[in-house]
Amino acid sequence: MSTETTDVTAAILVIGDEILSGRTKDKNIGTIADYLTAIGIGLREVRIVPDVEAAIVEAVNALRARYTYLFTTGGIGPTHDDITADCVAKAFGVGIDVDPRAKAMLLERHKPEDLNAARLRMARIPDGAALIPNPISKAPGFHLGNVFVMAGVPAIMQAMLDQIGPGLARGAPVLSETILARNLPEGTYATPLAEIAKRHPDLSIGSYPSMTQSGFENRIVVRGQDPAALARGRAEIEALVAELSA
Amino acid sequence: MSTETTDVTAAILVIGDEILSGRTKDKNIGTIADYLTAIGIGLREVRIVPDVEAAIVEAVNALRARYTYLFTTGGIGPTHDDITADCVAKAFGVGIDVDPRAKAMLLERHKPEDLNAARLRMARIPDGAALIPNPISKAPGFHLGNVFVMAGVPAIMQAMLDQIGPGLARGAPVLSETILARNLPEGTYATPLAEIAKRHPDLSIGSYPSMTQSGFENRIVVRGQDPAALARGRAEIEALVAELSA
Repeated sequence: MSTETTDVTAAILVIGDEILSGRTKDKNIGTIADYLTAIGIGLREVRIVPDVEAAIVEAVNALRARYTYLFTTGGIGPTHDDITADCVAKAFGVGIDVDPRAKAMLLERHKPEDLNAARLRMARIPDGAALIPNPISKAPGFHLGNVFVMAGVPAIMQAMLDQIGPGLARGAPVLSETILARNLPEGTYATPLAEIAKRHPDLSIGSYPSMTQSGFENRIVVRGQDPAALARGRAEIEALVAELSA
Repeated sequence: MSTETTDVTAAILVIGDEILSGRTKDKNIGTIADYLTAIGIGLREVRIVPDVEAAIVEAVNALRARYTYLFTTGGIGPTHDDITADCVAKAFGVGIDVDPRAKAMLLERHKPEDLNAARLRMARIPDGAALIPNPISKAPGFHLGNVFVMAGVPAIMQAMLDQIGPGLARGAPVLSETILARNLPEGTYATPLAEIAKRHPDLSIGSYPSMTQSGFENRIVVRGQDPAALARGRAEIEALVAELSA
């Protein structure tokens, strides 16, 4: 049972048929998850939806209402399947048009005569949004309300995340400790571990099996915001593992 | 714009704090996406939620109502944070208890005296569910209504998927062709590509940029269920790329 106490929360919305078809394997979720955890923002939910207006609008509105921040990736390029900006405008009920600031950014990369209708689509920004500069290919993301709209290409997403990170509210960082339970099946420690978890409602304790060449190798992860509480939980778990391994 | 016509649809629900914290990077979404695409099932949505009962129950009920199938991964081990089976029972409003068939499976691996309360948790199966055998560590998944509950460990998830696959309804497989648009920026072909997409509402056409050492390398993917329509779409896109590259 999760007992997170971080009060700054977030969701990620990944937009793109290519992820759902399996053709492209998402790399952004893990990157953003690591980033948010490191700065004390609790990632609470992720959704992946196709390039379909109704699905995107519904997900944007569900997630922005529920969490402190919503981060979206994908669908902000120049082609017909890039509909994220229009969907976010629709979700907020605001207008959208070519933004002079965004157009100026595109002109850093493209000659005026190359700034055709398709490329200008990348400068379509919902009314009232702030821009997120794109140092790699110039077409910006944007920030409207508590929603941050970023590119799907991982290197560009990362560059955008690096820029918006410093401006985000932060919770107390969630610290974590990992105790390796080598050669100890989960079933041998599950009951006493549950008792430790019950005694420490301020900690989140999880057990994660993974398979290695030599069989299962379980890791017990204890997470929390108070270093002293974390140290106490860790000590109890280490004592349990030592006792069972003896 | 997605123009999928497959009528057998699916969603994935990934359950686990460890994915949301970034500690574990999910590998199951891509595996299941590839598998479903290959057998003509359209994956329409993915959600990742924490080990929190309310979040799991809500997601199970939202997704099972909306799609032909729902596949869940994670949360079916013996530790206190493994609450998926109980949450699925709650979502369906059915009882849950130790299932004799599941207990018999666990006894293939554990001696009766080692089958403690924690391990017996892995035999808790909602009333009316069919079991999904686990050839690797024995603790089964299960299948209730249109929901398939699988393990989170990728090798076990794969083994479960291989077993349930043959029993799934299949749509017409979605075929896809990829046209490489090397050294051709998306902005140069976006407008005529949108026109091709408009002329072929039975095809789903997407453009996917990726960054390589030598700059952007774009791929145009055309997908559809009718081979002849797919070939026509592909030919038009190839002609466009050739014309613009000349």
